[in-house]
Amino acid sequence: MSPEWIRGPCQTASQSHRALAEARQKQLTKPLGSLGLLEAVAIELAALQRTQAPVLHRAPIVVFAGDHGVTARGVSAYPAEVTVQMLRNFASGGAAISVLANELGSSLEIVDVGTFALDRIPGVTVDKPRCGTRDFSQEPALTAAEVAFALGCGRRAAERQAGMVPHILILGEMGIGNTAAASAIASALLACPPEVITGSGTGVAADGLARKARVIAAALERHRLKGASAETVLGAVGGLEIIALTGAMIAAAQLGIPVLVDGFIASVAALAATRLNAACRDWMLFSHRSAERGHALLLDALDARPILDLDLRLGEASGAALALPTLRLACALHNGMATFAEAAVSQRSAS
Amino acid sequence: MSPEWIRGPCQTASQSHRALAEARQKQLTKPLGSLGLLEAVAIELAALQRTQAPVLHRAPIVVFAGDHGVTARGVSAYPAEVTVQMLRNFASGGAAISVLANELGSSLEIVDVGTFALDRIPGVTVDKPRCGTRDFSQEPALTAAEVAFALGCGRRAAERQAGMVPHILILGEMGIGNTAAASAIASALLACPPEVITGSGTGVAADGLARKARVIAAALERHRLKGASAETVLGAVGGLEIIALTGAMIAAAQLGIPVLVDGFIASVAALAATRLNAACRDWMLFSHRSAERGHALLLDALDARPILDLDLRLGEASGAALALPTLRLACALHNGMATFAEAAVSQRSAS
Repeated sequence: MSPEWIRGPCQTASQSHRALAEARQKQLTKPLGSLGLLEAVAIELAALQRTQAPVLHRAPIVVFAGDHGVTARGVSAYPAEVTVQMLRNFASGGAAISVLANELGSSLEIVDVGTFALDRIPGVTVDKPRCGTRDFSQEPALTAAEVAFALGCGRRAAERQAGMVPHILILGEMGIGNTAAASAIASALLACPPEVITGSGTGVAADGLARKARVIAAALERHRLKGASAETVLGAVGGLEIIALTGAMIAAAQLGIPVLVDGFIASVAALAATRLNAACRDWMLFSHRSAERGHALLLDALDARPILDLDLRLGEASGAALALPTLRLACALHNGMATFAEAAVSQRSAS
Repeated sequence: MSPEWIRGPCQTASQSHRALAEARQKQLTKPLGSLGLLEAVAIELAALQRTQAPVLHRAPIVVFAGDHGVTARGVSAYPAEVTVQMLRNFASGGAAISVLANELGSSLEIVDVGTFALDRIPGVTVDKPRCGTRDFSQEPALTAAEVAFALGCGRRAAERQAGMVPHILILGEMGIGNTAAASAIASALLACPPEVITGSGTGVAADGLARKARVIAAALERHRLKGASAETVLGAVGGLEIIALTGAMIAAAQLGIPVLVDGFIASVAALAATRLNAACRDWMLFSHRSAERGHALLLDALDARPILDLDLRLGEASGAALALPTLRLACALHNGMATFAEAAVSQRSAS
């Protein structure tokens, strides 16, 4: 069903560079392990970048945006028109991710992969099979051809970015209603009841949350998603921006570009990506643990330990962007610290 | 016993600027609360800096170094001479904090407040009452006069930094054996058994850890520290660099400079500071949750929620330095994001 390229081989990390990086960490002037997770990150990036000196200077950001027919069912705290309003805000520099991109020196590409926008918005790339998904509470959100198109949107974005030889790719999303789609996907792929996964998204209140979980549970039944393949699930409950993220993650792994995964929705896309092509998992770094209820389950399923835990729940790649400076410092420490021999510092006692 | 200035009044945060910052956070183009802890941090800094646009451009780092007589009892994985070797490494740019200071554009002052070094080390400020503490397993680590001197070391460092009008002061320490002193202080101040607080520091093995906890327990008995005042505890089990941190934190609060507290040992100094002058707590931001066993208890006692949780256990102000970029981005988001009105984005539905 899904396009053939999705199953194509991913690049592989360099085991020799991993071994060199591990050896170097043992020689740096600090107790072994005392930089915690940052040591693991530096070693991983050395292996992925096939280098002794990993860096993250070029870290472009791509945000995929899409709309959701299911917003007609009152599953979000915000009206659907906010998606397109926020596209303008991204482009004019007022959104969180715009501010972060500017601070980090990262380029920011906004890709409309399926919002309700009918007109072109200046500063926004348009690559969409349709305007919004169908309401998944009534019918499948997308056809197989539309799913394939959205996966291709992600691949085309990754290929555009690859031209700038990025050290890492920062990926995120925007779309009112997309925690409903993402929760539905996660629920199906993890075989976990919707009421366990579903959170309040942008801040839907208790009665809205219960409605959201009921809408999802009914859709899983209607579309017979129990035990279904990732392709089937993505088509049934959709999320053009979620599917584009999935495609971008797989394509990045095939191109040998590490990706920094944002929060709940991006992690759902990451889970779908690993179901379509397991080898792409090696190229994913996880940026933060979201306040959104289902994220912890997803991170466990992905065997991921994220960098930050700040109760973020904004999306837009903002959590991934926020984690970048910490990752950059992990690289700087790996590359810049003196070894025990260089600094003439005694190593630990034999005991 | 302790010098009179220690009890002097601290500066106060501006409630009007706090209110303005809270109101602004509600107007920024994101769901309220979706930037989690970063919203609280920006509001707090606005109140402390008495501004509508908090910044952390100037963030000098001070690391206090001292040695510990108790290292004779085998409480550390590293030999005591490493403290002085590391001073040279700080000064020559090879240590973790040297690399971080360079990356962050922060000045780095290393203050020898009591290492075993007899000679002057280029690039290191010397302000010490003695070389190393006495072995607290045998006798009190410091006299009252030495405690007062060490508090003054901290104050003098804060005053030197104040001349450069810092937006925040990053404080840390170095001293082989100082997790033993810090665990003893925490154990006494929190009335918590040493075996609960004491961790492996730079990496002492299981038998060494048991020995370390026994040495601390015996010292608490010998010096009758149950229910003792902070001054008495600091004198009995010492840590010149720990006491200097305590003095620097109180002085910074009196000067109206926010401080970014590093890990376990700096948090012990922070706890002692709040016992000497409760109002200084308002000026403390906590950078990370250390892997050192007792840190969680200390953070609870200080009612602190730190920014990072990366299993760090290096000290040297490295955790605080690592948290700075995240705090800077919290300020940038607060100052730079558009409001709903500016961006013409709809607010949440009435439901």
